[in-house]
Amino acid sequence: MRTIEWRSGKVVTINQLKLPMETEFLEMQSYSEVAEAIKTMKIRGAPLLGAAAAYALALVAYHSKAKTRNKLIGELERAAETLKRTRPTAVNLFWAVDRVLNKARSLNGSPRELAEAVVMEAEKIAEEDAAANRLIGKHGAALIEDGDTVLTHCNAGALATVEYGTALGVIRAAVEQGKKVRVIATETRPKLQGARLTAYELKRDGIPVKLIADTMVGYVMYKRMVNRVVVGADRIVQDAVINKIGTYQIAILAKEHGIPFYVVAPKSTFDLGHKAAEIVIEERSPEEVTFIGSERIAPEGVEALNPAFDITPLKYVTAIICEEGVIYKGDLQSLKPTKQ
Amino acid sequence: MRTIEWRSGKVVTINQLKLPMETEFLEMQSYSEVAEAIKTMKIRGAPLLGAAAAYALALVAYHSKAKTRNKLIGELERAAETLKRTRPTAVNLFWAVDRVLNKARSLNGSPRELAEAVVMEAEKIAEEDAAANRLIGKHGAALIEDGDTVLTHCNAGALATVEYGTALGVIRAAVEQGKKVRVIATETRPKLQGARLTAYELKRDGIPVKLIADTMVGYVMYKRMVNRVVVGADRIVQDAVINKIGTYQIAILAKEHGIPFYVVAPKSTFDLGHKAAEIVIEERSPEEVTFIGSERIAPEGVEALNPAFDITPLKYVTAIICEEGVIYKGDLQSLKPTKQ
Repeated sequence: MRTIEWRSGKVVTINQLKLPMETEFLEMQSYSEVAEAIKTMKIRGAPLLGAAAAYALALVAYHSKAKTRNKLIGELERAAETLKRTRPTAVNLFWAVDRVLNKARSLNGSPRELAEAVVMEAEKIAEEDAAANRLIGKHGAALIEDGDTVLTHCNAGALATVEYGTALGVIRAAVEQGKKVRVIATETRPKLQGARLTAYELKRDGIPVKLIADTMVGYVMYKRMVNRVVVGADRIVQDAVINKIGTYQIAILAKEHGIPFYVVAPKSTFDLGHKAAEIVIEERSPEEVTFIGSERIAPEGVEALNPAFDITPLKYVTAIICEEGVIYKGDLQSLKPTKQ
Repeated sequence: MRTIEWRSGKVVTINQLKLPMETEFLEMQSYSEVAEAIKTMKIRGAPLLGAAAAYALALVAYHSKAKTRNKLIGELERAAETLKRTRPTAVNLFWAVDRVLNKARSLNGSPRELAEAVVMEAEKIAEEDAAANRLIGKHGAALIEDGDTVLTHCNAGALATVEYGTALGVIRAAVEQGKKVRVIATETRPKLQGARLTAYELKRDGIPVKLIADTMVGYVMYKRMVNRVVVGADRIVQDAVINKIGTYQIAILAKEHGIPFYVVAPKSTFDLGHKAAEIVIEERSPEEVTFIGSERIAPEGVEALNPAFDITPLKYVTAIICEEGVIYKGDLQSLKPTKQ
């Protein structure tokens, strides 16, 4: 199943906040609905945010009543601003918005022609993500051995992408090759994407999965219950991988236990013109920590921190798997020219 | 306030499962009520479990209708068996039960005289714990500097002990010395003792505390927001500290960031005749992970692991603070003779 689809003037996706208890489809007809869904995390996952933002611009173009090319581009630019303010860390969103905008700006046709091109560009971004994930899966599966137990954090699955998934795509591809693979999924507080989404996807696919609390990562490594870690990424910069909060500590634990730590992401996640120190780490509402669902778990008035991402220096990363192949430590810079 | 009290034939304590939303006092008149409260974690915390188990035997003795010394000892022994089956990991419970039993066995008086001695021994265990915590606080506070931000895990506070606390006792003592100390408390999934109990205790005392999810420990260390870690212990063996699940990974992270990692516990927690490999790590119900309170967070049928404790080898521990002082790495064995 596709996580996001274009249906003539509508973007259809799943409300991920309601999974796994309820499968509620969202039918969005305006870019502001998409922006809202991104902000509230009804839609999440770096590659999916790229596709969703592109489709949001497609909605603008498709429904626009602009009479001139320039008016339409102005509308797209205003929507792009709103979309870029939703979440600051994952780079795919910025990349996709700029790619669609640049496509529109490069054309000189009628508003209708531009609109068609914008919709096509968004569709292309989504298609490319799906294709990239299949390729990534193939490259990554070669690193997974029959009998492995793989630990993953958060959700870098079909639900984080257009389809198939990055980290979970690697696991799926290994299973498709006939390898027996078991998964340990961290619940991933505060938003519980591991418990809610990764466990759901893997169970649906019949891939054996056990859930652990985030406190149990060290223990399962100590007990040699895990022999590989695969995670996704929200942004890969020159010197670090930025991903869901908790990734950094898992990488340190993996290194301490001699367990390979793989980061899996399409090249739309690469931002090799920047360093980690320049990246804004989104701070979300403290209530995501002091509440779980509707249930308060801490006394009234207690403050909480809530960084949504953390920074894993490359020294803790064994390899990065993208659609072009496996990039081993020290080789990331050599990809840089292809990105500029 | 005392966490546990003897009131002529009753043991009064707080139902810690209901904190911080509700302060429900438990009045227990039989050892089986105490055993049940321990099993379900209405009462938790290694030193508190010691006092509670001792008081449970006091209840047996106080209410006994035994006509002979031997009958009473038989009743105490049966109760002791039940109490020892409640939770396998924290050693204080076993230590306290054996101490009270041995006291009874050493006496030759009437059942009434034995009962009085048993109650007195239980009171003494509780008093000694309170006194030990004050001493521990004094020793530990010397290691805390003005302006420190201390990270703590789970709850090693007044609620885990008879009063004052071990890890939180050290923080309280430092604050009483006029030092400015801030605390970062991990929420401590699955049972959320950090969010529910540590945040509650510190807020009540006016000690600044910020809550984090367990995924955020690496990040706050990376950002240099923490310069010390203090935790309690459930059992200290020859080669390791056994404490709440999540302790081990925090110790590794502290070492990686060059942050001192202190373990704080009374000598009733020491079990230097054993090694980590011999200790049973309690596995609790998977529902503690797949549910939070009454709310299911994972799809039906997903399995979960739930080890309640983990094992931190001494190489990750900077020092252990007990009522006799501060034991630095490598010196733990020299305490051994005093325990045998």
